[in-house]
Formats: sequence, C-alpha cells, structure tokens
Amino acid sequence: MTKKKLERVGFQGELGAFSQEAVRQLLGASVEVVPCQRFEDVFVKLAKKNVAAAVIPIENSLAGSVHENYDHLLHFDVRIAGETNVRISHNLIAPPGVPFRKIRRVYSHPVALNQCLDFFAHNPKLEREPFYDTAGSVKMIMEQRPPDAAAIASAVAAEIYGGRILRRSLEDDRRNFTRFFLLRRSGDAKQAPTRHKGRTEWKTSVVFSTRNIPGALFRCLSAFALRDLNLTKIESRPLRGKPWEYLFYVDYLSRVDAPASQNALGHLRELADFLRVLGCYPMERGA
Amino acid sequence: MTKKKLERVGFQGELGAFSQEAVRQLLGASVEVVPCQRFEDVFVKLAKKNVAAAVIPIENSLAGSVHENYDHLLHFDVRIAGETNVRISHNLIAPPGVPFRKIRRVYSHPVALNQCLDFFAHNPKLEREPFYDTAGSVKMIMEQRPPDAAAIASAVAAEIYGGRILRRSLEDDRRNFTRFFLLRRSGDAKQAPTRHKGRTEWKTSVVFSTRNIPGALFRCLSAFALRDLNLTKIESRPLRGKPWEYLFYVDYLSRVDAPASQNALGHLRELADFLRVLGCYPMERGA
Repeated sequence: MTKKKLERVGFQGELGAFSQEAVRQLLGASVEVVPCQRFEDVFVKLAKKNVAAAVIPIENSLAGSVHENYDHLLHFDVRIAGETNVRISHNLIAPPGVPFRKIRRVYSHPVALNQCLDFFAHNPKLEREPFYDTAGSVKMIMEQRPPDAAAIASAVAAEIYGGRILRRSLEDDRRNFTRFFLLRRSGDAKQAPTRHKGRTEWKTSVVFSTRNIPGALFRCLSAFALRDLNLTKIESRPLRGKPWEYLFYVDYLSRVDAPASQNALGHLRELADFLRVLGCYPMERGA
Repeated sequence: MTKKKLERVGFQGELGAFSQEAVRQLLGASVEVVPCQRFEDVFVKLAKKNVAAAVIPIENSLAGSVHENYDHLLHFDVRIAGETNVRISHNLIAPPGVPFRKIRRVYSHPVALNQCLDFFAHNPKLEREPFYDTAGSVKMIMEQRPPDAAAIASAVAAEIYGGRILRRSLEDDRRNFTRFFLLRRSGDAKQAPTRHKGRTEWKTSVVFSTRNIPGALFRCLSAFALRDLNLTKIESRPLRGKPWEYLFYVDYLSRVDAPASQNALGHLRELADFLRVLGCYPMERGA
C-alpha cells in the first residue's frame, strides 16, 4: 500500500503558532506543515516550489493589517486561494514549577504583548520582552528555563512544548480574530471551486495605484460603486521610492469572472496607473 | 532677570530618538523635552497637563502607519497642531573598542531592523534583536557593554550616549521619511496661525466611520470629491469590538474653516455614523 504524499504547506512561526491553526482550518490535518522564520521565507519557499501552498496572516481585528505581507503579495507571483479567521486567545505559559509570583519577564511577539495591555497594567512588576514569535517564545523558555520568565502564546503552543498555562485569555478584547490567506503559485492550475454547504459568496482581492490628484481614489472606487459591488476592505500602502504616494488594496464581494466584476475591473484599468488581481476565493462567514 | 520657562514637550523613546529631531523641527531647540516609554504615556501626559505639547510619529514612507497612534488620536481629547517629516538614516553603533567583526547581535526597534534587510542579508552572522526603542538600544549597549553587540539608531543617539558609528546609512531605501504630528490639548487656545514664507497650504485631518453597506465609503468620499478637495492620505482601522468594520482617517488639503471644507464636513456628517475633526495645520512641503 503506497502512502499518499502529503501536501507541504509553509507558514511563519514555530510549531504551535496561530498560523498553524489557520492551516488546519483551511486544509485539514492531512498536510505537512513547514515552519519558516520570516514571512519572506514563506513566500520564497512557495515561489521556489519547496511548498505547494502557504498560509499567512493578513489582518487582525484589533491590531490592523500585517503590512509586510501586503508588500510580499505584490512582489511575489502568488495568488490568494482562500481565507479563514482564527480566534486569538492568549495564555501566560511558564515551565512547570515556576509559579506566577516569581514571574518578572514575559516574552512574546510585540503584537501579542500589545493585545494584553490590561493584564500588564494590573501586573506592573512584569516586564514585556519582545520576541520574534509567540510559539517560539514558549519553545525558548522551555529550553532555557529562566527562573523568572514566562511566554504569551496559544494553548496549542503550551501543549506542544510542555509549558504550563498560568493564566488564560489575557487578551484585552475577546473579539480578537486574525484573518489568514491561503496562497498558491499564480501559474498553478486553479483548484475546482470548493463545494460549500448552502450558497457560497466569493471575494476578489485587487491592488491598484493612482496618481495623487484630487478625486483619483474616488473615481477608482466608482468602478465598484456604480456596479453595486460591496467593498469589504480597503488598505493603503506607501509606494516604495515615491514617498507619500499610495497603493490601494481592495477586497470586494464577487467572483472575479462575474460580469459586474469584469466590467468594474475594465473600468478600473482605465483609471488606475497599475492594477493586479491578487485572487478570488470563497468568503469565510462568521468572525 | 527671570529665565523664561521653557515649554515641556513629550515624545516616545529615549533622548536621541528620531522623535526628538521632529520636536526640534516643529518647535525649535528652546523647549524642554520629556521622553516617555510608551506612546500611550505621551498622550496621558498631554491630557493630564504634565506637558504642553507632544510629538508622535504617524507614518513612515516605507513601513506605513503607526496604527497605535491613530487609535490614541481617537481616544484622547487632543488636536493635531502641526506636521513635519524627518529623514530617517540608520547607523550601526557599538561601544568604542568593539570592532565590526566581533558583532553578532544587533539591537533596535523592530521597524528599524526591518528597514535594514539588505544589510542583514549581506551579513548573515548578525542576529536581529528587537528592542523597544532605537536610541534606547544604544543606551543599553553603552551601559551593559556586551562584547558582541551593536545597536541601530540615529547619529544623534551615537553622539548622546558616546557610541561609535561602525557603518552609516544602513537603510535599504534612502527615501525613508517619518511623518510626525505635533499635538496639543483640544481645549487649549488655538495658536495664531504660524507665519510662513510664501503661500501656506493647510491640511485638515478627520476620522469617520460608516456602516458596511455597498458604496458607503464611496459616498463618504464624494463629500470631498464633489468639492475638489484633494485627499493626501486615507487609512482604515478596525473598529474595536466590531470585527471587520472600519474607521477611516482622511487628510485633505484645505483649512478646516474654508467654505468648501465646511460644506464637505456638513455633507459627510449626513453620510457617516461618526465624524470628528482631528486638527487643521500648515502642510509641510518636501519629503
């Protein structure tokens, strides 16, 4: 009996990162996860065919967008093939035997530290120590066993590395979700549209730039508004090398090949200096 | 002879931070600078009248917006009273006697580390160590004198703390500017409009939210477009507690009290769920 070769999927962070939960939600458990240290490494691995797919965070409901990934979406030849929202819950994790009263330093990713400000305000003895990754901070304290340090990460990270959860749900706001994109190479054959129960709504993501003249963005958005296409997200990013000029990333509800969408993109092409479709994918409900 | 009491101005970071250069550009050298550890502390000090003014970074031409400060602008009762752009140039700084070949760890603010990726790609032996502040990382290595560590910060920070510059202009892109806002309390008497040489252009900054319905943002932007008001910036921020709904921050070229601006704001008030004017200030040319 031949064992089916598992699809390799890249993500940033150590095993136990929230991105790994996003991989599970998007592709199920039967994949081989490939942890990478930096977001750029994830895109490079996908472009070089070291992995078949990649999963990256694109925005958090509290912290806002992951700008670096918007930039990578533009510079690598990839397409967005799916999205999912992961509920983010932060836990204070220490090596077994280290009690809460001994903790003085708390390691985690700066975004996670910043989402637990009430906890730190109530515990002024705790110093926040920025680390490159949430799950990685658990791995580090379990390896180095400093007697006065803890980490903030997911419950899964505590389980994987054998840490003990001292406090649960440290996050200031329980409505803390991160939206992730599933990426594939642009050239790879499109998957057959996934079967979803009930009516599937589709999202299309595009990026465009305009000259900095009065009403330019307004005219570009008219391409969508005149066709009743609902924008779910607009994000501006500075254009490298052109200080204070901007790229716009827009998500709207429609299949890319629907007539209204095709007309809108045709219209937008007349108005924008630059336009690229980043992907079309089933919208995830909820969050 | 009585010594004139200097105006106290808060900023985030240690002495030598880029924010201190912004203070000098906005208010000259005759002020007392009050360094704060966190952005929130700067806003709290201003609100509590510990300082008369504050200077905060709002966006970088490469890294994008400083989201946390957009949130604070909404939650504190302050107004934007000025803007300035500071050219960001990063230097590798070590204690005197530590040669480049000994360096293994480089401390700095994550945004600064992220703006020197080419330098790190060419020097793969160097580990990037995130620190809460650029100038603070210089202060730390000068106090602790680790034999294998350097910091990335401004030339002014090297001078203040006695560090030696080993490499200059590490930044990937020379067109690296940060835009800073001068803030004052909303209630404080408006300054007389500053005299500027030549014609002064004014900017107004507002924040608004809309329901998430098709064309809502488009209709809001029509309030500006129909009056030929030029937007120089639009930024969306997630609404806390309402996942995937957004606030919009808009800057446009006009005095807030000009007729077109007043008409636009009246129109926008009809369309938006929420609207606040954050300030009106002379536009800085250049960058």
